[in-house]
Amino acid sequence: MAAVPDLLTAVREQGPLVQCITNYVAMDLAANALLAVGASPAMVSDPAESAEFAGIAAALTVNTGTPSPRWVEGMQVAADAAVAAGRPWVLDPVAVGATALRNEICTDLLARRPSVVRGNASEVLALAGLAGVASSGGQGRGVDAGDSVDAALEAARGLAVRSGAVVVVTGPTDLVTDGERLVRITGGSPLMARITATGCALTAVTGAYAAVGGAFDGAVAACAVFAAAGGRAAQGVRGPGSLRVALLDELHLLDQDSFTGVEIEEVA
Amino acid sequence: MAAVPDLLTAVREQGPLVQCITNYVAMDLAANALLAVGASPAMVSDPAESAEFAGIAAALTVNTGTPSPRWVEGMQVAADAAVAAGRPWVLDPVAVGATALRNEICTDLLARRPSVVRGNASEVLALAGLAGVASSGGQGRGVDAGDSVDAALEAARGLAVRSGAVVVVTGPTDLVTDGERLVRITGGSPLMARITATGCALTAVTGAYAAVGGAFDGAVAACAVFAAAGGRAAQGVRGPGSLRVALLDELHLLDQDSFTGVEIEEVA
Amino acid sequence: MAAVPDLLTAVREQGPLVQCITNYVAMDLAANALLAVGASPAMVSDPAESAEFAGIAAALTVNTGTPSPRWVEGMQVAADAAVAAGRPWVLDPVAVGATALRNEICTDLLARRPSVVRGNASEVLALAGLAGVASSGGQGRGVDAGDSVDAALEAARGLAVRSGAVVVVTGPTDLVTDGERLVRITGGSPLMARITATGCALTAVTGAYAAVGGAFDGAVAACAVFAAAGGRAAQGVRGPGSLRVALLDELHLLDQDSFTGVEIEEVA
Repeated sequence: MAAVPDLLTAVREQGPLVQCITNYVAMDLAANALLAVGASPAMVSDPAESAEFAGIAAALTVNTGTPSPRWVEGMQVAADAAVAAGRPWVLDPVAVGATALRNEICTDLLARRPSVVRGNASEVLALAGLAGVASSGGQGRGVDAGDSVDAALEAARGLAVRSGAVVVVTGPTDLVTDGERLVRITGGSPLMARITATGCALTAVTGAYAAVGGAFDGAVAACAVFAAAGGRAAQGVRGPGSLRVALLDELHLLDQDSFTGVEIEEVA
Repeated sequence: MAAVPDLLTAVREQGPLVQCITNYVAMDLAANALLAVGASPAMVSDPAESAEFAGIAAALTVNTGTPSPRWVEGMQVAADAAVAAGRPWVLDPVAVGATALRNEICTDLLARRPSVVRGNASEVLALAGLAGVASSGGQGRGVDAGDSVDAALEAARGLAVRSGAVVVVTGPTDLVTDGERLVRITGGSPLMARITATGCALTAVTGAYAAVGGAFDGAVAACAVFAAAGGRAAQGVRGPGSLRVALLDELHLLDQDSFTGVEIEEVA
Repeated sequence: MAAVPDLLTAVREQGPLVQCITNYVAMDLAANALLAVGASPAMVSDPAESAEFAGIAAALTVNTGTPSPRWVEGMQVAADAAVAAGRPWVLDPVAVGATALRNEICTDLLARRPSVVRGNASEVLALAGLAGVASSGGQGRGVDAGDSVDAALEAARGLAVRSGAVVVVTGPTDLVTDGERLVRITGGSPLMARITATGCALTAVTGAYAAVGGAFDGAVAACAVFAAAGGRAAQGVRGPGSLRVALLDELHLLDQDSFTGVEIEEVA
């Protein structure tokens, strides 16, 4: 596995251009998180240009948080173009399981061969169920997970095998699996759940790291970077407003020594 | 009237899921404000899923800040679904009176029986006029109020009687009326007017409190919570950038003793 | 040239209403920057109301960062209405040159006679090329400039002559030209490039200053205001999260003495 600190440096040196088709809530934080880690964001979503741009970008990230017909079309053609160009693309199936529309959209996008799928435990359980992976069912409601990360472990493995994607389950602990290997990343802060769009921003940053380090190592590194920055940011802040500011500062400031509070463990 | 500190605790304990169909500018602050008070935001707006989701959510909030045809359709079907499900919904008629489109949209939405209407003085005057309530006319221009809160008092009462909604007029002082009762909340900071979307965020938070405490008490509590947090946040900040951060921190930190600077007065 | 500090005061006193048709990423920062300098933002973009509102607003700003067909129509009719009403309008051709769609949209908008065009060096080079101005070609990729500001100097002059607009090239140094006069503004901080939408926010603020001071002097003043606030904000901040907060604070706090770190030089 490529060392996380090495990828930290590589992303800053290469400054990958990451195309984000994300939701309205996450736009600002996702773009700022990409800039803070040294990547370059581009929010290009309309089908009239999203496929063309996917041929320019180093990676594509697609987030279904606020779907509408034209945006979904933009996601679809961009995903196909990314695959055709051999670029990694990351799917963030926000609130899949909550409505029929999200189930339909996410099933369609999963079939377009994402390199990485990142969701919370409830989203991964729901998506795995839609993909025909047996699981014990989810408790999601909207965008917040109602299930523990470990409850989604088998679903994540099954989803990875079925889809060919690296699957990332994020929460108090993060899991990354390609169906065989399994890495567990522990760090961050519980207060991060009180800021909107941190998961969506992690998805965007996963695109940057996957462009530089490949899907599996990139996903692990992105989780580790967020865990390190989130843990450091949470020290001494008054509340979620300050934490959001400090998170961006720490993403920018991370260095080789910043990962002492983060546990990265290959468990299979 | 339910005590505000009791509702503060109840929202945190119940964590109501609040569906927001809001404008592009307010998305981030509204979602973060809901998280900071302990609620759970979901920005679900497309008509292909907004009605379905309104059956899941504990409350719906609708804000007309950046309207477009498909979004308006999403608002309409969600409002109807919320009413059918017996869930409270809150209307924020941003810049009503400024364009013919906004007048048309807000008139339509008002007829769909919102539980609460929240606006600044100019918006309440304009909406009351559209609803046939006699008033002395407004001075709004765009999203900022050109009228004092007290100038909108009679219009607010009339609008409440005509529409059946609790009407909230926010500004340096906030008024909450159901046409008979009238509560005045004083607190906050004048600097809050130099941050965008604080009113829209209050609308979202009003949805959370209405879900837990009912329309009238919930609206009073939401105003009191913002007045308390805003007043505390303004102490010692350098400017509006810092105030926005501190507002979210203080919403998260509020406790039973945080309301000393806020005056809540039932005047009728 | 009107003194920058005088325009600083005039914008605060007059509080111009600035209509912004901007991208999803920039909405929040653009609105907050306008409020911080004492102007009043209104994000009115749908073609059903954008032209009507352009007759009310003191200035219009149009940013092509996240284009879609209906938004582009809203931009077009609003631009025409602003010209018809004799109000200044500012074009921000985000990532022009990156896709065929952006080239088409920006060529169309340029023909609608903006008062000011503001972009980074790569965008100005690309737009000048589309307008038939000979230049040495650009290296842009997405929203970030791949070219130095000075490399765009002749393209900016040519574009100003060809289009009749004041052209602003922003970067480490900013250039403002009407084809004859040329002003160079130096200040700010390199860290500003690590925050998203600072350029878009400057475009919005340029609208406010152009409404009060005219296109040329307004553009110079807006650049000077951002350079002063950005330079002061960068002092002692930990990273880009803090810088974004401090930038809004400093925009609000600027006074006559805040421009000591900014060099404004008329070079032609």
